[in-house]
Order: sequence, then structure tokens, then C-alpha cells
Amino acid sequence: MSLFYEDFTVGQSFSGGRRTIPEAEIIQFAQIYDPQNMHLDRLYADEGPFHGLIASGFHTLCLAWWLFLQLGLVQESMWVGIGIDALRWQRPVRPGDTVSLKVEIVDKSPTSAPDRGRIVFSHTLTNQHGETVMTYQSINLISCKVDHPS
Amino acid sequence: MSLFYEDFTVGQSFSGGRRTIPEAEIIQFAQIYDPQNMHLDRLYADEGPFHGLIASGFHTLCLAWWLFLQLGLVQESMWVGIGIDALRWQRPVRPGDTVSLKVEIVDKSPTSAPDRGRIVFSHTLTNQHGETVMTYQSINLISCKVDHPS
Repeated sequence: MSLFYEDFTVGQSFSGGRRTIPEAEIIQFAQIYDPQNMHLDRLYADEGPFHGLIASGFHTLCLAWWLFLQLGLVQESMWVGIGIDALRWQRPVRPGDTVSLKVEIVDKSPTSAPDRGRIVFSHTLTNQHGETVMTYQSINLISCKVDHPS
Repeated sequence: MSLFYEDFTVGQSFSGGRRTIPEAEIIQFAQIYDPQNMHLDRLYADEGPFHGLIASGFHTLCLAWWLFLQLGLVQESMWVGIGIDALRWQRPVRPGDTVSLKVEIVDKSPTSAPDRGRIVFSHTLTNQHGETVMTYQSINLISCKVDHPS
């Protein structure tokens, strides 16, 4: 069910979707985008501060975004992403962890363009133990169903 | 040349590294993490607001982070990433674009742990025309050379 700018209300929340992250995917992502030993080398990581391999925070972010798209909320209405605020990696994501997403609408405002408005989504990613692993806000331009007067 | 917490000074800047982004990589990334037509489908994107395929902003972020690591500044000193603030996708990144990175130290502060401090890096990614395509700040824990009194 795709929603448009008019359909979103501050305070609304949506949740759903989960994804398990295999070690091989953690390592493959890190090789391409975040080649640091804590994400790549299990033996090194076992001796490190996290006592084991942890996913790249950028990988965690990308998976959280994928989960957001899977909700289908903006499938027909996403105009473009403007940015991200207040991203915090709060706990490590480890091989085999299963993460799930909750999204809340925290702000909406019209733009000078009549066919789209600005929506701020607050994303919270939790692991299988119910612990928050990452939070961030995404700011997006979302299409209107009907042009508003500009 | 790896730098430690003590070596960084607010106002210092570093630049270097460039990377060209082929269309195939844009599409492959989008298929996995950001499956939206503006990143996946050239014909659809040609008719869209950007008049052509554009890279996922999450892809652009991951490439910018890779360029940062390639500078080698934190190769031995990165403890972990804490978060990201004020990320803005300012212009589209298109197939064949070549992006390059400039990084400035905008804040540093000790932590309660004697072996690491907090550094805020401001990242600016520009394209081959000298236009800024993305800016963001990363907050990281960086190891100290010598433990400071806690």
C-alpha cells in the first residue's frame, strides 16, 4: 500500500520486515565498501573490543533502508531522498543476527513545488533480542496525490 | 600515514582519492539495497525528474566512506564509528561520474575511556565538474597513542 504526502500524519508508525545477516554477506560488503579488519577478519575481530566480527555500520544502514522500501509505503510516491540526520550505531550487528524495522513519521512540511512535500521518517532497527542496534532519520521528498497551491 | 587521536587538530583537512562509478555498479548496488526505478531502470529514469539514471544515495555514501578509508588516516587508529549527522545529497551522481573526497576535522573531544577520543570528520564529495554532490559528518572513536588520564 503506497502512501502519498497527504496520507502521512506525524506520529504514525509502521513496522514489519526482518532480515538475517549471514557472515558471508558482512564480509562481502566490507571488502567492497568498508575494508576494516573488524568487519573482515574473524580471528582479528575475536581479539578486538567487540569479541567477534561485526557488520559495517554502512552495511547495517543499507539493510535498514532495504527493509524500509520493503514496507512498500513509498513505492509509488518517493520523489527523492534529501538526507539523513542523527544516525547512531548503538550496538554491534553480528553474523546471524536478525534485524527488524520500525518507522515513525516525525515531521512533514510542504515545499515550494506543488507536487511534492517533505517527510521525515525516524527509523529504529532492533535485533532478535529486542535491543536497538541503530537509529536514524531520513528526509525525503514524497509526491502528493493532488497538487497543492504554491 | 595513520594518525591517532592526539595527531588530529580541528581545522586540519585532507583530500585525495577519486573513483569513477560505472552504470553496472549503480544498478547492482540498487538491486541489493535500494531497488527503486530511478537507480535501476534506465528507460524509466530517462522519463523521470533527473532525466537519467542516478546512483542510490546510500551507494554514494558507501563509496565516500571507502574513499575516506583509502586516505589511510585511521587505518591503525579507528576504534569504531558512532554515527553520522547532517548528510545531504546535494546533486545526483550519474553513471560514469568521477567523485573525489575532501575531509576536514571539525571537532575532537576526550571520552571517559583513557585509550580513545571522539573525532568528528566533515566529508565533502565532489564530482568531475567540481560540484558538491554530498556532504556529511561522521563521528568516530579514534585510538590514542598514549592513554590519557581518565
